[in-house]
Amino acid sequence: MISVAVYIKGEVEYYEKIKKEFSEKASDIQILDWSSALRGPDSIDYALVWMPPIGNLARLSSLKAVFSLSAGVDHIVARDPDWPAHLPLIRMAGEETGRLMTDYLLWACISVIRGSRGWALQQQKKLWKRNVITRSITDCTVGIMGLGQLGRYAAEHLSRCGFVVRGWSRSPKEIEGVKTFDGAAGMKAFLAGVDILICLLPHTPQTRNIISAQVLHALRPGAAFINVGRGEHVVENDLLSALNEGMLSAAVLDVFHHEPLPESSPLWSHPSVIVTPHVASQASVCARVNYLIGSIRRLERGERLEQAFDISQGY
Amino acid sequence: MISVAVYIKGEVEYYEKIKKEFSEKASDIQILDWSSALRGPDSIDYALVWMPPIGNLARLSSLKAVFSLSAGVDHIVARDPDWPAHLPLIRMAGEETGRLMTDYLLWACISVIRGSRGWALQQQKKLWKRNVITRSITDCTVGIMGLGQLGRYAAEHLSRCGFVVRGWSRSPKEIEGVKTFDGAAGMKAFLAGVDILICLLPHTPQTRNIISAQVLHALRPGAAFINVGRGEHVVENDLLSALNEGMLSAAVLDVFHHEPLPESSPLWSHPSVIVTPHVASQASVCARVNYLIGSIRRLERGERLEQAFDISQGY
Repeated sequence: MISVAVYIKGEVEYYEKIKKEFSEKASDIQILDWSSALRGPDSIDYALVWMPPIGNLARLSSLKAVFSLSAGVDHIVARDPDWPAHLPLIRMAGEETGRLMTDYLLWACISVIRGSRGWALQQQKKLWKRNVITRSITDCTVGIMGLGQLGRYAAEHLSRCGFVVRGWSRSPKEIEGVKTFDGAAGMKAFLAGVDILICLLPHTPQTRNIISAQVLHALRPGAAFINVGRGEHVVENDLLSALNEGMLSAAVLDVFHHEPLPESSPLWSHPSVIVTPHVASQASVCARVNYLIGSIRRLERGERLEQAFDISQGY
Repeated sequence: MISVAVYIKGEVEYYEKIKKEFSEKASDIQILDWSSALRGPDSIDYALVWMPPIGNLARLSSLKAVFSLSAGVDHIVARDPDWPAHLPLIRMAGEETGRLMTDYLLWACISVIRGSRGWALQQQKKLWKRNVITRSITDCTVGIMGLGQLGRYAAEHLSRCGFVVRGWSRSPKEIEGVKTFDGAAGMKAFLAGVDILICLLPHTPQTRNIISAQVLHALRPGAAFINVGRGEHVVENDLLSALNEGMLSAAVLDVFHHEPLPESSPLWSHPSVIVTPHVASQASVCARVNYLIGSIRRLERGERLEQAFDISQGY
């Protein structure tokens, strides 16, 4: 029997769904809640976590690997100084995650091109005012920061839908039909041609606060910003200033420094900001459990997984 | 000198923009406002109109053709019994119109799939509640009613973006990668597999009230409806009932029986309805004037235009 301990902060029902899905699909894998696991910490093979209590992972002395419930692993490595860094840390992935993210990005891009935030505000006031926007997808250059599995998938798909797509990443990447830039040296040239900037970076000490006034002012005047990375990537005051000064025409934000976004945040009511509650890409329980079972089988066979966290890269 | 009389209901500024664009691009074409034209009605070669005053077109005795400022011509033929039916009536068209319409439809489709109306209502209340939707574009069948120039363009593009697309029209049509149905006999089979129904029909006596309870109940349960045709296509009470009974999960409406949509309409505040102010596809002045100049040149050479209204078809 393979034992998997699960901790998902604030989501009790979700734990039950995952447990049920595993029981239907893999009878040799046992799912345990966190407190049960901590009562027999030396018998747990794998941990599946979102925002685990600090210091807890280190207590599971027989762990073979840790699974993150999200593509990002900052909720483990940036929070818990005692996380077991010698073990494989596997990021959530899978085709469905990419598809959902890409749908969201397509929606967000057209939302900023056409000014859908304005339509929503007008609907709220029962106000009929036509805004004539004649820019189409094909007139817009989308710049994607972060070309990992999700970034690459989004770049390819947005390009297929008609956008001109360019990408930036720390190290050089090649994507068909997409102009790529890399490193600090490539940043300025990348930004200069961008109408819609998408942040899909991993959260690392190097990417923290990367979306600053300097970056936002280097975009085409009147550009838009979409954040599906992490709230920590953004200097929020710089973002608000760029919006208020008109350097930036719109923003669609799915992630925030503090989640849930506090009621006091000026982002909620900003006329140029669309707020969504961290929903850009959450794969189904079914797709996630399929991915997890497949990954556990491969680890049990001694294979190395592509989606493992690379401590030297920071993601 | 070729004389073009222009009447655009409620849009004085737009007239000035069109006049300026023509003067820069075609020095042999003179643009006249409507009252000037009516003072010398036998010297006008072409009329370009949106909602022209009833009976007026008949007074322009030397007209060679009438241009509609929209793809639909119901604002002329359904309103003015004296419109000069012996003349070519040319519908607005052009690549840009198709691109803008398709962008809007892509946005509207993802909006209903992901529940963006709910996000907007939550933002209004500063409420953070995650809705987990795991359906992607590739899981959805879009059904397009109306396969004219715009419908065909949209079908091809939505299919390229990943949707499963099917289409329905009065007479048989073939579109690569799109399953097509036609006539009254094909309607039921068409509707039965549709997750998102898009109305892109022309407005004719036959299509008036075509979106009724019968049609809406024939869709897949929980389907969504997008109207970019005309308000007159929809039995509004049937639409509201289908939404309130949950047969329909969402609607995105860009056109209405009465525009501007009256403040008293229950559509404005319906939690499942997105209202936009007839903006799905309004080409730029530049693109429109290019199209108009090209069409005038072709008419002057005695050519027949594809986008001419066919009185026998009603569109």
